[in-house]
Amino acid sequence: MSILVVGTVALDSVETPFGTAENIFGGSATYATLSASYFYETIQLVSVVGHDLPESYLQALHERNIDVEGLELRSDQKTFAWRGRYHYDLNERDTLATDLNVLEGFDPTVPASYRAASIVCLGNLDPSVQRSVLHQVDAPAFVVADTMNFWIQQTPDSLRKLLAEVDCLIINDAEARELADEPNLIRAAAQIRALGPDILVIKKGEHGAMLFTDGIMFSAPAFPLEDIQDPTGAGDTFLGGFVGYLAQKGVIDTPTLKRAVIYGSAMASFVVEAFGPERLLNMEHEAIHKRLRAFRELSKIPAFEVPVQSEG
Amino acid sequence: MSILVVGTVALDSVETPFGTAENIFGGSATYATLSASYFYETIQLVSVVGHDLPESYLQALHERNIDVEGLELRSDQKTFAWRGRYHYDLNERDTLATDLNVLEGFDPTVPASYRAASIVCLGNLDPSVQRSVLHQVDAPAFVVADTMNFWIQQTPDSLRKLLAEVDCLIINDAEARELADEPNLIRAAAQIRALGPDILVIKKGEHGAMLFTDGIMFSAPAFPLEDIQDPTGAGDTFLGGFVGYLAQKGVIDTPTLKRAVIYGSAMASFVVEAFGPERLLNMEHEAIHKRLRAFRELSKIPAFEVPVQSEG
Repeated sequence: MSILVVGTVALDSVETPFGTAENIFGGSATYATLSASYFYETIQLVSVVGHDLPESYLQALHERNIDVEGLELRSDQKTFAWRGRYHYDLNERDTLATDLNVLEGFDPTVPASYRAASIVCLGNLDPSVQRSVLHQVDAPAFVVADTMNFWIQQTPDSLRKLLAEVDCLIINDAEARELADEPNLIRAAAQIRALGPDILVIKKGEHGAMLFTDGIMFSAPAFPLEDIQDPTGAGDTFLGGFVGYLAQKGVIDTPTLKRAVIYGSAMASFVVEAFGPERLLNMEHEAIHKRLRAFRELSKIPAFEVPVQSEG
Repeated sequence: MSILVVGTVALDSVETPFGTAENIFGGSATYATLSASYFYETIQLVSVVGHDLPESYLQALHERNIDVEGLELRSDQKTFAWRGRYHYDLNERDTLATDLNVLEGFDPTVPASYRAASIVCLGNLDPSVQRSVLHQVDAPAFVVADTMNFWIQQTPDSLRKLLAEVDCLIINDAEARELADEPNLIRAAAQIRALGPDILVIKKGEHGAMLFTDGIMFSAPAFPLEDIQDPTGAGDTFLGGFVGYLAQKGVIDTPTLKRAVIYGSAMASFVVEAFGPERLLNMEHEAIHKRLRAFRELSKIPAFEVPVQSEG
């Protein structure tokens, strides 16, 4: 059994109210694979990089045992680069520059050794590329996808074709409202699930995440942090923790999905504590363990003996 | 034992994307007392109204057994009137008109029969009026206050004097950030608690509420609703459910406070389903009971056996 992750590997330049960083390791597949690697052994990466990706960045993937056979190197091109700025409201960001470079015309070939993958994790990319990767996998047991407002607006038909083929969609609240063209999240969730994904996770940044599946709504808090340095990659780190935990348990049922949302949230709560994927490079079991327990405490409602005693 | 509530009784005119209502029953004390009346017998109201408050509105308070000895009637003046408009993002509202009328120079006298109140609930008003009411009560066991951005900006010194005398402050997230002049909620909470209130509840609208007290953070979800008609009074209804439950239990400890946040949230989730306080007029035990159970299900994390199994 393996988890196949397709997404971007990037050089990010980030400005937040707490500092700046230039050309640090980034990209959706980077964050997702590093995060998943704490929960499952076999993580297979599909992406593309150029000649300018520092060797130490690739080394970081090796050290987490991530299979990079599907990471194409184009020595005549530059790596995908993103530059962005966050404000005090860390839920909002401005994209200052996006240089697609190697991503332009990216049409990945999934290595033969990846084709038996049981979990396929389609990071945010052109939906037609996501589908092409999915169709190269023999018989995935579980398909998870992310997307963003750009694809919702620019390639709605291609996105709908993709949604019909995925088991689980993970998007943020603004994207969910836009995709369903419906301001109410509960109604938006029902409409999105009718497009294909049985399982929908809506991420709400500092307000946590919600899980929707048959007859079930689950609301997970975000972990309240005193020092957030850089929110970049939080969503992808969530995705990695979510699929990593599901793969580890080897079962997709409602209790496991709820716990997977907490695992994803816990991993995301670490990554924002430093610039880039720094915190994901050598995390200790005990730290993850402790944060998971703190999550439980944070939202645990003490039992009520009798819900209502008096009508006044 | 009794709960004394001071606040406004108002005539509200409200516009939401789902309808409009003119001169409906409103005000912070109206919502808070009606909500508390489902959990505790003796609710004492301190406020002021004019000649134009329909008799049927007073009748609604009588029917919920609310003591209105402290509700002053000024037959030569008009009732406080508020007019507002909500947009699709129901967390935002525009105040279109505020006619203070009887509230101008409101300097309440607490009736002798109220002075033994054990819980004092200071609804949003000029902090000097809140303090004057508090000082007329003999020996309250628990003092809860609400405030808003207007008082944070206009009467900061008076507000700080009030905060030094209250046990619990209940405000929304924007007000907490403004009061502490600190964008991070965790740090803002610590700073506000240092001003006096041992217990701080931060309401986040559709994102739930947080409780902060010694060494404790608790995050409660909001109940996700498909049909929200009118958010007016949700915060005051929360306050009423919160203090009503605390009074019913007769104990202020961490588990009871956490449950009180859920009771407040459940009552608030009902009130927004109709215009004005409609839903608070004749609610059934069983409906409250059912909503409380739904809240538990919504945020209950299934036990994890082993938090982390593999380091990949």
